[in-house]
Amino acid sequence: MKVRNYREVEAEPAEGMPGVTVRWVISEKEGAPNFAMRIFEVEPGAETPFHVHPWEHEVFILAGTGLARSEEGEVPIQEGDTVFIPPNERHQFINNGDAVLRFI
Amino acid sequence: MKVRNYREVEAEPAEGMPGVTVRWVISEKEGAPNFAMRIFEVEPGAETPFHVHPWEHEVFILAGTGLARSEEGEVPIQEGDTVFIPPNERHQFINNGDAVLRFI
Repeated sequence: MKVRNYREVEAEPAEGMPGVTVRWVISEKEGAPNFAMRIFEVEPGAETPFHVHPWEHEVFILAGTGLARSEEGEVPIQEGDTVFIPPNERHQFINNGDAVLRFI
Repeated sequence: MKVRNYREVEAEPAEGMPGVTVRWVISEKEGAPNFAMRIFEVEPGAETPFHVHPWEHEVFILAGTGLARSEEGEVPIQEGDTVFIPPNERHQFINNGDAVLRFI
């Protein structure tokens, strides 16, 4: 068992995403065999790329407000929202608010 | 893409765990191919069983305080803590605080 606060993990600049950081809190390094837990922080006005890949995401919004975008359109997101993105579905997270958008 | 607040999902009594509820927020029902996201709420004085299974957990503490127990001992947990439980490691969550212990 490994316990650590996410704030102890370095917030690295996310490659190719200005205004976005990522903390790899649980991953292969810790021995996780199946999936990784990461904490993203998106500054106001910043966004992740509108991109697609063969693995799914299970997202939990910790703080802030923004939009989750897919090819079907945009949906507002806020604290407590969960977002399931199936494999091979194009997706993006946009911070259109005035506070940091933080999600798992 | 599916977006919903975890509070919209029914908190079901967790079988065999008095004072514990579970919300299945993302699972096979939503088409998740690989793992499920669940929100547990443990009342003060309540606990999950000290048990073991072949799948791992990646846990994020949303609120409250308590203990994460393994065969190595107990570790205090609080908001923002992450807990990785490898496959086949015995584990338990104990609410020894005075507020609900809520975790993903």
